[in-house]
Amino acid sequence: MKQLIYADNAATTKLNNDVLEAMIPWLTNEYGNASQPYSFSKKPKKALAAARASIAECINATPEEIFFTSGGTESDNWAIKGSAFADPEKRVTITTTIEHHAVLNACAAIERLGYPVSYLCPDSYGIIAAETLESVITHSTRLVSVMHSNNEIGTIEPIKELADIAHKHGAIFHTDAVQAVGHVPIDVKALGIDLLSASAHKFNGPKGIGFLYIRKGTNIARLNDGGNQEFGMRAGTENVALIVGMAEALESNCEAIDKNEKHITRMESILINKLNTVGMDFKRNGSDNHLPGNISLSFNHADGEALLHRLDLMGICVSTGSACDNVNTQVSHVLKAINLDDDYAKGTIRISLGKDNTYEEAEIIADSLIQILTV
Amino acid sequence: MKQLIYADNAATTKLNNDVLEAMIPWLTNEYGNASQPYSFSKKPKKALAAARASIAECINATPEEIFFTSGGTESDNWAIKGSAFADPEKRVTITTTIEHHAVLNACAAIERLGYPVSYLCPDSYGIIAAETLESVITHSTRLVSVMHSNNEIGTIEPIKELADIAHKHGAIFHTDAVQAVGHVPIDVKALGIDLLSASAHKFNGPKGIGFLYIRKGTNIARLNDGGNQEFGMRAGTENVALIVGMAEALESNCEAIDKNEKHITRMESILINKLNTVGMDFKRNGSDNHLPGNISLSFNHADGEALLHRLDLMGICVSTGSACDNVNTQVSHVLKAINLDDDYAKGTIRISLGKDNTYEEAEIIADSLIQILTV
Repeated sequence: MKQLIYADNAATTKLNNDVLEAMIPWLTNEYGNASQPYSFSKKPKKALAAARASIAECINATPEEIFFTSGGTESDNWAIKGSAFADPEKRVTITTTIEHHAVLNACAAIERLGYPVSYLCPDSYGIIAAETLESVITHSTRLVSVMHSNNEIGTIEPIKELADIAHKHGAIFHTDAVQAVGHVPIDVKALGIDLLSASAHKFNGPKGIGFLYIRKGTNIARLNDGGNQEFGMRAGTENVALIVGMAEALESNCEAIDKNEKHITRMESILINKLNTVGMDFKRNGSDNHLPGNISLSFNHADGEALLHRLDLMGICVSTGSACDNVNTQVSHVLKAINLDDDYAKGTIRISLGKDNTYEEAEIIADSLIQILTV
Repeated sequence: MKQLIYADNAATTKLNNDVLEAMIPWLTNEYGNASQPYSFSKKPKKALAAARASIAECINATPEEIFFTSGGTESDNWAIKGSAFADPEKRVTITTTIEHHAVLNACAAIERLGYPVSYLCPDSYGIIAAETLESVITHSTRLVSVMHSNNEIGTIEPIKELADIAHKHGAIFHTDAVQAVGHVPIDVKALGIDLLSASAHKFNGPKGIGFLYIRKGTNIARLNDGGNQEFGMRAGTENVALIVGMAEALESNCEAIDKNEKHITRMESILINKLNTVGMDFKRNGSDNHLPGNISLSFNHADGEALLHRLDLMGICVSTGSACDNVNTQVSHVLKAINLDDDYAKGTIRISLGKDNTYEEAEIIADSLIQILTV
C-alpha cells in the first residue's frame, strides 16, 4: 500500500506522541474513582486538578471555569440547551446558518420544545458581520452562539465584536471553538466569551473527551444530571485518563502554536501556488483570516465526491465537508450559505493540513489534484 | 505502604488485562474518524461494528439496538429525558426512591420542565414490589424506570414482572443496569426491557464509555443532537478506542460470569461468617437475591465515615455509599428508603468485592473490621 498522506486534520488528528504515555497510569494501576475519599483516589484527584488548571491556562480561564464533557457535541448541546432551560424569561437564541450540526441540531431541538431561534447569514467569505447581529438582537435574546471558526471553510469570525454586542443587550455569548482550540491563540477574557466548546481529538488529544468553558456567573443548567462531579454541573465518573491526555495535548499544542502556524501556512502556500501555476479553474473558500491548514477548494465542473475517492486511491485522505455529515452527499449547508455557484460548490473538497504534514506532502497533494483534474 | 486491598468494585473496577492492548491501535496508528468515507477509516468502522455486535450478543440484543454513550449517567439521562421529550401525550414517569442519582436527578430535571414523576417505595430489603407499580401506573404513564440492581445494597429487582406491568399499561420500561451488566446474566428480550443503561468502567472496561440499549421501535428522542453517528441517534465523533475496550471487557466478563460469581460468593461467605463468629452487632442490607460481592453492612452505633477512614489507613478501600455522592455525608437516600434504624444506618459501609479479590483479602477485611470495632 502507498504511504498514507493524512490531510483531514479538521475531522480528527493523531495523538501527540506524549499523550498516550500520559494516559497509561490511569488505564492501569491508578484506576481509583476520583470522587472517592480514600487515599487510593488522591492521585487521580490530583491529576484531574492539574489537567483542569493546565487547560484553563491555555485559554486564560480559571480552573473552576473548565467543565469536562465527552466532546464538542456534548459541549455544544450543553451550551445551547443548558442556557435555554436556565432562564424562562429570555427565550430567544441567535445563531448562524453555518454552524456545525451539533449547534444547529441542538437549536432545532429547543425549537421543538418552544424556544425560538434566529439564524444569521454570513457574507460570501463566511463572515458573520457585527451589524447582522445588531439588527436581530433584542432584550429577549438569551444566547448568541457563533462559532469561533468554521469547520468547512476555515473562516475565523469577529468573536470580540459579536460578544460585545451580545453583552450590550444582556445576552450570553457562546462560541463553538472545536476547530480553533489548540490551533490559534484563544483568550476567553480578552474575547469576552461566556461559553466555549472544545474537543480534544481536534487538537491531537484522544476522542471522546472535551470541555465546556463556563465563565464564572453564567446562568446555565446541567445537561447530564446525576452525581456531584464537575462542581455539581456535569455528572458521571471522571474520565481521568482521557482528561489527562487532553490536557497534555493542549498544553504541547499551545506551546508550539506559532511554530505550527508558520509551518502549516508555508504548506498552504506551496499547495495553492502549485495549483495556480498550472492555471486550474478553482476558488478557495473562506476569508483571508482563516484557520491554518483549512483549505476548502471548489473546482469548476468537478465532482467533490469523486475527487475524494480518486485521492483516496492515491493514499490521500481529504474530506468533502464535515465528517459528521458524510451521509449527506449534497452541497453542504455552509457552501449554500456563502452562495457559492453550484458549478463550483459540487466540486468542493476540504484539505486540512496539520502540524505533522510535510512540505513534500503538500506538493504531492497538489500534484495529485492536477493529475486527476487536468489529465 | 501496605498492599492495597481494593474492595470498592461497585464504584469502579480495574481494566481487564487484555482491554488496554485492544485499545492501543485506536490510540496510535489507526486514528481515522470512523465516519469518513476513505480507506483509512475502514478499520475503525469495522472495529466499531464488531464491538457493537459483541456487546449486543452479551445481552441478547441486536447490534442496531446498541447506542454508545459516554457512560451510565448519560445513558440514564437519555432514557429519562429522551423518552419524556419524545411523546407529548403520555407525560408521566414512574421511578423509585432508591435509584442512582443519575436517574433521580434526571427525573427532577424533567419535573422542572413540567413532566410529572411518581416515586415507588421499596420494602425493607430494597425490593420494588410488582403490586406497588400496579397501584400507581395509569394510561398516562409513558416510562417506568426501575434499576436492575441497587448500587448501595445490591438488591436485584423483579425486572420481568415490573416490565410486564409497564407493557400491559402501554408504558416503556427502562432499567439502570449499570451495576449488573457483566456481573449477572442479562437477557433483555427474556426480561422485556425496552431501555437499558450500562457503563464500561463498572465491568472492568474503561471510564468514560457506556451504552444505552434501545429496543427496536422504542419511541425516544436524541439527547446529544448533531452529526449522524450512532444511526442518527447520538451525535459525536465515535470514541473507537474506548468502545473497543468496553466490548473486550464485557465479552470476557460475560464468558466468566458463572466462575466469577462462584468465586465472589465464596469470598462473601468467608467475610460474613468471620464477622458472625465474633458475634458482632450488624445487619447486612439488601435482599437474598443480590449482586455478587455487593456487601452493605450496618454496624450498630458505629460511624460509617470513620470506619471508611480507619480501613483506608489499613490499606483497604471501601465506600460509605455511592461514589457519586461522597460530598453528602448524611444517611443515604437508599438506607432511608428501606427504613433502616438510624443507629445502624449511620454505621454503614459498602464493601464491594470483584473477581480479582482473593479469599485472603476477604479474611483481612473481616479481621480489620473486627479489630476496629471490637478493640
